Amino acid sequence: MTGGRDDLAVGVDVGGTKIAAGVVDRAGEVLEVLRVDSPAADAGAIRDAIADLVTQLRARHRVTAVGVGAAGFVDKTRSVVLFAPNLAWRDMPLRADLVDRLGLPVVIENDGNAAAWGEFAFGAGADTDDLLLLTVGTGVGGGIVLDGRLHRGAFGVAAEVGHLRVVPDGRLCGCGNHGCLEQYASGSALVRSAREEAAAGNPLARDLLDRAGGDPARITGPVITEAAQRGDAFAVAQLATVGRWLGEGLASLAVVLDPAVAVIGGGVSAAGDLLLDPVREGFAGQWRGTRPALEVRRAELGNRAGVIGAADLARR
Amino acid sequence: MTGGRDDLAVGVDVGGTKIAAGVVDRAGEVLEVLRVDSPAADAGAIRDAIADLVTQLRARHRVTAVGVGAAGFVDKTRSVVLFAPNLAWRDMPLRADLVDRLGLPVVIENDGNAAAWGEFAFGAGADTDDLLLLTVGTGVGGGIVLDGRLHRGAFGVAAEVGHLRVVPDGRLCGCGNHGCLEQYASGSALVRSAREEAAAGNPLARDLLDRAGGDPARITGPVITEAAQRGDAFAVAQLATVGRWLGEGLASLAVVLDPAVAVIGGGVSAAGDLLLDPVREGFAGQWRGTRPALEVRRAELGNRAGVIGAADLARR
Amino acid sequence: MTGGRDDLAVGVDVGGTKIAAGVVDRAGEVLEVLRVDSPAADAGAIRDAIADLVTQLRARHRVTAVGVGAAGFVDKTRSVVLFAPNLAWRDMPLRADLVDRLGLPVVIENDGNAAAWGEFAFGAGADTDDLLLLTVGTGVGGGIVLDGRLHRGAFGVAAEVGHLRVVPDGRLCGCGNHGCLEQYASGSALVRSAREEAAAGNPLARDLLDRAGGDPARITGPVITEAAQRGDAFAVAQLATVGRWLGEGLASLAVVLDPAVAVIGGGVSAAGDLLLDPVREGFAGQWRGTRPALEVRRAELGNRAGVIGAADLARR
Amino acid sequence: MTGGRDDLAVGVDVGGTKIAAGVVDRAGEVLEVLRVDSPAADAGAIRDAIADLVTQLRARHRVTAVGVGAAGFVDKTRSVVLFAPNLAWRDMPLRADLVDRLGLPVVIENDGNAAAWGEFAFGAGADTDDLLLLTVGTGVGGGIVLDGRLHRGAFGVAAEVGHLRVVPDGRLCGCGNHGCLEQYASGSALVRSAREEAAAGNPLARDLLDRAGGDPARITGPVITEAAQRGDAFAVAQLATVGRWLGEGLASLAVVLDPAVAVIGGGVSAAGDLLLDPVREGFAGQWRGTRPALEVRRAELGNRAGVIGAADLARR
Repeated sequence: MTGGRDDLAVGVDVGGTKIAAGVVDRAGEVLEVLRVDSPAADAGAIRDAIADLVTQLRARHRVTAVGVGAAGFVDKTRSVVLFAPNLAWRDMPLRADLVDRLGLPVVIENDGNAAAWGEFAFGAGADTDDLLLLTVGTGVGGGIVLDGRLHRGAFGVAAEVGHLRVVPDGRLCGCGNHGCLEQYASGSALVRSAREEAAAGNPLARDLLDRAGGDPARITGPVITEAAQRGDAFAVAQLATVGRWLGEGLASLAVVLDPAVAVIGGGVSAAGDLLLDPVREGFAGQWRGTRPALEVRRAELGNRAGVIGAADLARR
Repeated sequence: MTGGRDDLAVGVDVGGTKIAAGVVDRAGEVLEVLRVDSPAADAGAIRDAIADLVTQLRARHRVTAVGVGAAGFVDKTRSVVLFAPNLAWRDMPLRADLVDRLGLPVVIENDGNAAAWGEFAFGAGADTDDLLLLTVGTGVGGGIVLDGRLHRGAFGVAAEVGHLRVVPDGRLCGCGNHGCLEQYASGSALVRSAREEAAAGNPLARDLLDRAGGDPARITGPVITEAAQRGDAFAVAQLATVGRWLGEGLASLAVVLDPAVAVIGGGVSAAGDLLLDPVREGFAGQWRGTRPALEVRRAELGNRAGVIGAADLARR
Repeated sequence: MTGGRDDLAVGVDVGGTKIAAGVVDRAGEVLEVLRVDSPAADAGAIRDAIADLVTQLRARHRVTAVGVGAAGFVDKTRSVVLFAPNLAWRDMPLRADLVDRLGLPVVIENDGNAAAWGEFAFGAGADTDDLLLLTVGTGVGGGIVLDGRLHRGAFGVAAEVGHLRVVPDGRLCGCGNHGCLEQYASGSALVRSAREEAAAGNPLARDLLDRAGGDPARITGPVITEAAQRGDAFAVAQLATVGRWLGEGLASLAVVLDPAVAVIGGGVSAAGDLLLDPVREGFAGQWRGTRPALEVRRAELGNRAGVIGAADLARR
Repeated sequence: MTGGRDDLAVGVDVGGTKIAAGVVDRAGEVLEVLRVDSPAADAGAIRDAIADLVTQLRARHRVTAVGVGAAGFVDKTRSVVLFAPNLAWRDMPLRADLVDRLGLPVVIENDGNAAAWGEFAFGAGADTDDLLLLTVGTGVGGGIVLDGRLHRGAFGVAAEVGHLRVVPDGRLCGCGNHGCLEQYASGSALVRSAREEAAAGNPLARDLLDRAGGDPARITGPVITEAAQRGDAFAVAQLATVGRWLGEGLASLAVVLDPAVAVIGGGVSAAGDLLLDPVREGFAGQWRGTRPALEVRRAELGNRAGVIGAADLARR
């Protein structure tokens, strides 16, 4: 063991493609981070990979607790993963399994909740008690901090903000419903729309298509963002459409939750104000002067928010 | 002073048409209640009426605190009414004014919040820690209790559930936006739709129109509910439409808030299962089996929920 | 009688506020036009005013036929005004009455149909056989020419394009339905939206509000158009929103009707490409390359289209 | 040649899975019909199959003309198939090719147009001059007869009624747009929705799922219709949802086209009033008493409408 500092925790962020584990100190600093591919189809293998990462990190750091953020529904006691759409877990007693193997205290948390906590404790929401995180990636996830406390919900499955219905009888969502926010305001929606236009021969999409080597299937989120940053009007407009939907959805969430700050994270937030300005416009167009308005900010912790938040939650 | 019990509080419910004030004990029992018309257009007169009602009640009861539930935005410190759409209050320092006059501790609360607290503490949600109240009256209001705590929001204006947008570019709302839930799922929406159909000569609406003396303008919520209870198919269908919108809106709220219980109150809830069954159907149609589901219940405290909740909050 | 040319016809355009009557030759030239206020509330008085205008014009021109375009539903035989929302006519046998008084052949036509025929015969559609006219004024009206023939419909009430439903459960329309195109794409929609934003204190609307003397109620269509022509970004955006809705509605109409040319008329078309470019964009965004696409043009006959078209129809 | 009657024509109906060819007399009677599988992926093979079917029929009947109804866009001169989504044809000069091979007059027509003409000439619209056909099958197709004439449109591609947009930002359509009518009101929409509910474990769908052997993928249109005819409430409700969407879409079409009769054909119309009554309700809910209303009827010619209509058009 080379680390000398006390009171370190490991945060683990378990997604459908990658597992990241990091050692985090009380100030939210990440001392070391490891990443492996996620054996998403094998419930036991994911658990083993988590245990293995923690074991490697413990060999070098004095770790006192482990927090796991997982892309799925976690029960109220923060012990069992009820359902994870992109992982093989169904009613998986992850906490008990990991405690058995590691002999350390463990908490399991939804990944959006963990990231929201990270941004609240050490990132874009460090100056507020009431924060709503929206993570704009493949889907739209999120987490809610109210009065300085993480809001988990009665069954532990709150903050599934991507499944707010924004269009009755709208686009089909992977969840089986129609019109969910994430069908309009996610990275997937961004890419799908750009590809459709390119494939349909929209002349405005020509430059973007050229950058993708002429193949619509090679238009990705980063390709769109780069094009937008270079001033491509079509790419700017595509990001703006996603941003406005997000801002309008945010207005609906805000009348219910009344947060002080909305933090926009996830891969698409790399576009910065090209995404955030339309979010603000979409929000403002739905907001009335008689209500105090929240502030829209970009996330600060990047893809480490989940690791940092999970670790911090494990210590509390 | 005739009352002998200690620790009584007065709860006041200030609406656009009536002010009710009641003496409430620790068990949520209302010992006495007074009602007067609301001098809604005169900011000072409303305040004076509240003070007068409390003074009358104090003459007969040992009152230790006063809670006021008001139909408007109340600031985070529960002192100032920021804005009340149907009352004359704008940035009204109601708490300070009442403390000056009464010499008692006072808290101001949003009326939906007060009612939610009443149902949580003594009514339909007494067995749960996580409750969402929807009050279906002229508009759709509500209140949120999470982990046993009233959720006020960063600015004190959370739980404005009637302004969730359910239809983009939808019906114009009094708030200035389009497509708010209360334009589809309120008593006003119910009455407006029934009147339109009756006025347009829809033969299915004939019985209902007859009951209203042939005048569409005399079709009211109670007229529709009574007709539905007698089996009038048109009235049943009108309530079902409102209920389904409410249930679908509830599904959007529930993915974010994850309450254990949704309580349906307000005047339209007098229709009982004629409203609540469609709420349950609308909700179920949007809900997926992988998530635990909340329970939909009718409110138990009727129009005293606000008085009871405000009084109880004043004591805490 | 001063006129010498043969085969002149009088066209009359009967609206809710004005009646215009003009003498029109075979080439569509207007030799003389008279205008009076419309006594809209008195069915007989409107008829008398029409007869009076024709009589005045006959005193100076050799008139052989009279065509009347009226803002209402006209029966299949072009004789009876079935219903006119803004006039006092219900099942009014206008043709027989006018023939009695004038001793001339008379045809009655819907005003949108008459204008469409005018643009087809002598205006923006003179080079095509298949034209769809959209008139963007207080509401959205229109007329359809197919294979060189005016399309009246089985009951004489076709081409009510403003009542295409574009948003389920959308904005309430004067017709009693929700979500009609004219609630999104008319001059009224334009003005209402701009006033709302100005009244709500939207800072982008400040210049426009200043031009209206600080009174939102004085923001009118011409005020918005002038501001847009001077480059006011808010006014440009308001026109663009109306234009895009119109273009998207046009795409729905075009998949059904397949016209070669869409002509945009009515008062709002005075904005020219500030309206028409968004119409084209809205249309293009809904159109797929596998279908031949129509051409969007501005009307050429201005507010004389109805007079010219009605006169020409009377001669056929 | 065994046939003795003069003036017979062959009608051919070319779909994505089957080609049907029939000999039709002046009264619309089908004397003989042949069916083969459609070699849909091979443009030349489809043409050869058509020529072969006609040659077989000519051996036994005195055929004077050939009409071909094809599922695609046909140019204004009725000669070239511009585009056929489910066939291999792109700018295919089908008329010239068939004239070369057969030495007979040939016309090419869109299949929906041919079927509309069949129902107009000999079927459910034989008593009217103004008919709108809606065919409810895999998609929603149609045809329009106005004033006794088939409405082809300026480019020959009118009456694509399935692509009327009924929900802005709605369900993705195969055409690349969102919210097209056929995503809500087709047999595909019916089956998709029923399968989703069954797969999601909706208890109301249990009986239907049982009839499909427990496999959601085996729920088909006929399975749903049979279940509905036996009284299964879930199947009835699924058909009603499709019917209401269709009726509401019909209302939008009718304000524009003003037909006297709407004929509902296609495979789903086998459900009879279980489909047509909801169509009528959906229509009536959008219709206002001031307008004369069309009549909704079931198609009478079944799957022979295209053959009969194409043959009759070939003779004119």
